[in-house]
Amino acid sequence: MSIEKKRILAITTGGTIEKSYCESEGTIANRESILQKKLVQRLRLPHTDFAVHEVMAKDSLQMTEEDRLKISEEISRLASGYDGMIVLHGTDTMADTLRFCYERTAKTPIPVIFTGAMKPAEFEDSDARQNVTEALLAAQFLPPGYYLSFHSRIFPAPNVFKDRSRLTFDAN
Amino acid sequence: MSIEKKRILAITTGGTIEKSYCESEGTIANRESILQKKLVQRLRLPHTDFAVHEVMAKDSLQMTEEDRLKISEEISRLASGYDGMIVLHGTDTMADTLRFCYERTAKTPIPVIFTGAMKPAEFEDSDARQNVTEALLAAQFLPPGYYLSFHSRIFPAPNVFKDRSRLTFDAN
Amino acid sequence: MSIEKKRILAITTGGTIEKSYCESEGTIANRESILQKKLVQRLRLPHTDFAVHEVMAKDSLQMTEEDRLKISEEISRLASGYDGMIVLHGTDTMADTLRFCYERTAKTPIPVIFTGAMKPAEFEDSDARQNVTEALLAAQFLPPGYYLSFHSRIFPAPNVFKDRSRLTFDAN
Amino acid sequence: MSIEKKRILAITTGGTIEKSYCESEGTIANRESILQKKLVQRLRLPHTDFAVHEVMAKDSLQMTEEDRLKISEEISRLASGYDGMIVLHGTDTMADTLRFCYERTAKTPIPVIFTGAMKPAEFEDSDARQNVTEALLAAQFLPPGYYLSFHSRIFPAPNVFKDRSRLTFDAN
Repeated sequence: MSIEKKRILAITTGGTIEKSYCESEGTIANRESILQKKLVQRLRLPHTDFAVHEVMAKDSLQMTEEDRLKISEEISRLASGYDGMIVLHGTDTMADTLRFCYERTAKTPIPVIFTGAMKPAEFEDSDARQNVTEALLAAQFLPPGYYLSFHSRIFPAPNVFKDRSRLTFDAN
Repeated sequence: MSIEKKRILAITTGGTIEKSYCESEGTIANRESILQKKLVQRLRLPHTDFAVHEVMAKDSLQMTEEDRLKISEEISRLASGYDGMIVLHGTDTMADTLRFCYERTAKTPIPVIFTGAMKPAEFEDSDARQNVTEALLAAQFLPPGYYLSFHSRIFPAPNVFKDRSRLTFDAN
Repeated sequence: MSIEKKRILAITTGGTIEKSYCESEGTIANRESILQKKLVQRLRLPHTDFAVHEVMAKDSLQMTEEDRLKISEEISRLASGYDGMIVLHGTDTMADTLRFCYERTAKTPIPVIFTGAMKPAEFEDSDARQNVTEALLAAQFLPPGYYLSFHSRIFPAPNVFKDRSRLTFDAN
Repeated sequence: MSIEKKRILAITTGGTIEKSYCESEGTIANRESILQKKLVQRLRLPHTDFAVHEVMAKDSLQMTEEDRLKISEEISRLASGYDGMIVLHGTDTMADTLRFCYERTAKTPIPVIFTGAMKPAEFEDSDARQNVTEALLAAQFLPPGYYLSFHSRIFPAPNVFKDRSRLTFDAN
């Protein structure tokens, strides 16, 4: 008999982490979610039921208040079916969307972990795999609440910001 | 101003995770710790002060009670200087050493996270990087105690065993 | 209209290049050919019709004269259907098998390129991918004959040996 | 005693193959040559004396006739010191620069091999490593002349074009 599997949902919204390269155009942009193929398939998750829900595919600099509302509503709507949730998001406004969700519905029944990457997942030395690995673990055993997980550190909402000079996140 | 860095120590004992290939002999064996070069250097750890302490380099099937005592003593001796600790160990007797340490000194002032890998870190599809990434995060925010972290799951000591048919760990 | 595709056959015999790791046993050995999945699938070969023919899966130190005869016979039997051929072989006796084939049937209608690797293809820093990439190119435009291709160098049979101290091949 | 080393020069001009990602800006562009660090360092070249000469760092769509003249002059000026040469170039106008060099000085004392990539070298599934590996080999044993090497095929100048629909090169 095995321990019960944890049900984890990944909500994808786009961001650098999911940008991919188009060989015809020579450009890098958000096209479709590459989370499953490039990141999760390479992890060993024998105790996890993992699902992906694609909400949008946007550079986070383009996100509007409506987008944030939609993300927040999707999180709330889907939370009851899962033990934990990760949210892939562009780094530029990730702290804003985190705060938006936190202020709108501070009470969440499960841990909701925002993460992303400084370098797209398709690059050899991307931080995407590290950040997703960490967020998946955090989603399994942090207490309910909103968090941002990045570079081996967990920041509870809302006191976190992107430190552009150091290319990471930090607490404020 | 940044948040304070966490001081994390990795104790290495050998095991599959650290086995390397010798091109002259065509064999795979525990030689020296490859944790720093192959695993930690590829992670982004801006908020972590990371140190490595090599205790031994053994296949865990060869470990004696003396070896386990030495590992346990090193953990106890060094714990006061760190916020968290990971212990790299072969999978075959990892649960035994975990239990040994737990029974000998259940009270540890910091979280001590055992981990390892089914496939050596030098292989392209090794689970070493995943397991070390997870253990490093767990060492930062689990409460003090002994744990085994593997494949996106954390098992508190002592109820864990190697599930040889599924090539992972599970709770018992 | 495209240029005509070249028909290239890979004959596999085992050797370090094709050794794979067994997680249950913790050993590295010749099991089945991993050429297609680990090496050729990652190359872009729009102008190549590529086929694999598995003859044996042996460490080359275990090869007998009968084995060499079989390899030589398979090369001769299949040569007429292809524009070029590569032979994956263990490095320890690769020069011997090359000489055997060369002496038995010096006249081959196509280029036959022996290659292998110092480190199994599954390792991150294996030379397998480099050597197979080179051999595939050499098989397309060298004149008919027997060759050993290794580490960006082509050695016509039979004057080549494994330089064990430098972990490569050289001419003698 | 070893065989004599071949002296190979790589001339870099930019192009997709050398584009790198800037984490601050989130853009991909030609900055500095990444040939040595990302590609050649990972190859085993015990019989090669390898040197790099950076001529420019341009997207090949931006190249002018003056740029092509400069590339051609650098090739001619440096050829006498080497046994072979590779030229890294953007794919969009690679066939044009090849023809320019070929028409200006068809007589070259050594093989000159143009190559590049459809996807930048920093991407995990880039064709850069394959193309550079092949070009380095071709530069060692093709007869003197101008060539374009791509995706396991060698095209002698000047009859080659970029097949945009198939994302490769082909002969015309």
